[in-house]
Amino acid sequence: MADAPREASPTPRHIRLTSHPGQGAGGALPLHWGAADPQGRGPVVGTTTQRAQRNVVGTHSGSYGVYRALAVAAGKMVRGHRADLTDTAPTDAIGPHSAWSDPERIVSIDPWGASVQQVFAPQIAAGVDIRPTIAVTKAHVHLPEIKQALAFQRLQVDGRILLDDASAAVTKIAVEPVWWLPGVARRFGVSEADLRRALFEETGGMYPELVTRSDLEVFLPPIGGQTLYVFGRVQDLADASVTLTARVHDECNGSDVFGSDICTCRPYLTHAIEECIQGAQRGGVGLIAYSRKEGRALGEVTKFLVYNARKRQVGGDSADKYFLRTECVAGVQDMRFQELMPDVLHWLGITRIHRLVSMSNDKYDAITGSGIAVDERIKIPDALVPADARVEIEAKIAAGYFTDGAVPDASALAAVKGRGLD
Amino acid sequence: MADAPREASPTPRHIRLTSHPGQGAGGALPLHWGAADPQGRGPVVGTTTQRAQRNVVGTHSGSYGVYRALAVAAGKMVRGHRADLTDTAPTDAIGPHSAWSDPERIVSIDPWGASVQQVFAPQIAAGVDIRPTIAVTKAHVHLPEIKQALAFQRLQVDGRILLDDASAAVTKIAVEPVWWLPGVARRFGVSEADLRRALFEETGGMYPELVTRSDLEVFLPPIGGQTLYVFGRVQDLADASVTLTARVHDECNGSDVFGSDICTCRPYLTHAIEECIQGAQRGGVGLIAYSRKEGRALGEVTKFLVYNARKRQVGGDSADKYFLRTECVAGVQDMRFQELMPDVLHWLGITRIHRLVSMSNDKYDAITGSGIAVDERIKIPDALVPADARVEIEAKIAAGYFTDGAVPDASALAAVKGRGLD
Repeated sequence: MADAPREASPTPRHIRLTSHPGQGAGGALPLHWGAADPQGRGPVVGTTTQRAQRNVVGTHSGSYGVYRALAVAAGKMVRGHRADLTDTAPTDAIGPHSAWSDPERIVSIDPWGASVQQVFAPQIAAGVDIRPTIAVTKAHVHLPEIKQALAFQRLQVDGRILLDDASAAVTKIAVEPVWWLPGVARRFGVSEADLRRALFEETGGMYPELVTRSDLEVFLPPIGGQTLYVFGRVQDLADASVTLTARVHDECNGSDVFGSDICTCRPYLTHAIEECIQGAQRGGVGLIAYSRKEGRALGEVTKFLVYNARKRQVGGDSADKYFLRTECVAGVQDMRFQELMPDVLHWLGITRIHRLVSMSNDKYDAITGSGIAVDERIKIPDALVPADARVEIEAKIAAGYFTDGAVPDASALAAVKGRGLD
Repeated sequence: MADAPREASPTPRHIRLTSHPGQGAGGALPLHWGAADPQGRGPVVGTTTQRAQRNVVGTHSGSYGVYRALAVAAGKMVRGHRADLTDTAPTDAIGPHSAWSDPERIVSIDPWGASVQQVFAPQIAAGVDIRPTIAVTKAHVHLPEIKQALAFQRLQVDGRILLDDASAAVTKIAVEPVWWLPGVARRFGVSEADLRRALFEETGGMYPELVTRSDLEVFLPPIGGQTLYVFGRVQDLADASVTLTARVHDECNGSDVFGSDICTCRPYLTHAIEECIQGAQRGGVGLIAYSRKEGRALGEVTKFLVYNARKRQVGGDSADKYFLRTECVAGVQDMRFQELMPDVLHWLGITRIHRLVSMSNDKYDAITGSGIAVDERIKIPDALVPADARVEIEAKIAAGYFTDGAVPDASALAAVKGRGLD
């Protein structure tokens, strides 16, 4: 630190390392998770500008809160800026649905997070710095794979879902994580105290308030959230008589953006979009729920390390060693934790998915286990599986993925080989 | 918390809210940022399993550290798992380059982070839990836009860069952030003490060690990192006589994955990939550096709120109000902070970019300001700009983006209109 420029801090003052119950109680509004009425529930307040108003651990924008801190440090942003929410309200009314007031049904997002501009208008007018944790807007999306489906006449322009320029009209919804810790703990079958301790200690000491402030029940974790793309009327999602085609998709930047052929992520995603468009054109509604869980929530560095270990192991990349290699590097096969994923479906009022475009048993079990009916499961068409992704898909089928074909046995799995590192 | 199941913690013990200098000093290896030799520099140790070994604030995997904590809480992962790094080493040797030992040139990634398996093998053998923060692998990528370029004969298969199945062969590199705080502070022209305080306070109290442990100079922030895609020989990146085509691209999930037409992100990205392939086929080398900075690092909720405000404002969406609407909602026009972005270019040994596929003045200024020469800047072809993205691109050109065409004046800007919310 010897060479660092030393300047007087513009606001020199004592640094409080952790707050204590009762501090700022004069300003902080109470939160009663699961209360039916938003006034009874109270707003989630994660502002860093009016600290006495905070009633949560953590802050808004997921991991981007770190960039906001950097903006303040760099003097690029005025300390204490409050968002001007004029004209930002959702383009589509969503809910309230019955699950919003069921404290066990939604534990990882704030059901009132999209409509704070409206439901907490009095508090905002009174000076409370309340920010949306959900935003709802409209978009037109152009996908080359949809243009190809039009060229092959698998899809037709209808002027409502699929437009003259081959784009699809969607409602899209960004959702930040808002964890009600007592409910998250129950979802995983652990005590809240153990959850809090693990979140604190296993992150290397992030947010001591997790363990010092058991009165603060809500945590805004610094992780990515979800994005929802709706094809057709958003309100139809809550109508079980309207055929719903849905995929819950976990981010895979290497395939979703760059088209890497080691997995089926983008082909399955674009196939699901095609199914959603077809379904909406037939009078149904379509939904893609996209979660920021790169590399099974292990992150991309771990994912690439595993790729190398798979392709270099004795005998080369093969389906029977697919999960083992991940476990050796990461200590676990998968960290995505589909247990929290259905929350957003309940937020939308979904009670039945007629066509689930997913083969994942983890996702299926989480969705049906949360009380949502699933009628039919849609496989990725064989023609869309890249050659090098056979290792992944066969390993997953053997481990419980949905299929209407054969489940490979051990020797069949060992015979499914991937490319080397070339 | 009343209804939470109460179980005895499997490892009941005192919870340490913040460590103190000297604690665990017996086990923690020293870090001397910028030392030329890796043994003199010392390994970055962010393990949560052997706490006495830690010599940083924070933990590995960026924001996915929270999922790892969840895995431990849920009992899905053994506390204390150490990564088995067998066969995970980089597919391509990179560096060391002179910038690796310049403590001002690289401050936000660990130059030795890709090769810990090799350079810190003695420490790993001695039981220190050292993990890579960079991973280097190979991939084949299939992009519909590249297939189209082949169909229109703008590209040809050569069997080396572009293969018979229309995929491109790449080396890809995942990079996690590793911030050396004294250097990050100097990069932004603030004192290290003020940077630490802002990072702590403006995140709502994340990592008190930021302010209590000035002896810990390295921070592993819980944010997304970068992914590098190299077309051609990685080693050629460091050879200024080999023509380098490069784009530094900031994540935009809505366009990069879903093809939203409100911005130019995916079209510019795929155009850059086409330029990279052409350049590599002519004997050069290509690079895409992809940073996880969704929505100008404001996050997607803020981004969608801004979309609504833009499209609903009096007079509708127009280029002259483009930046204003972001500033009203977010308090700042942009939080991407290109100041740290060139680090990864220096890590690769880059000293000259012959063709920079970017119009951003912020990126250009950061790259050239860091000492890398830029010969030529490549605009996005007009035909690739979606109609609704005219608002964005014209506003940016007026604000300083590179163009070889006209810079719109105030009245021209006001005349560039976007679509409404339909």
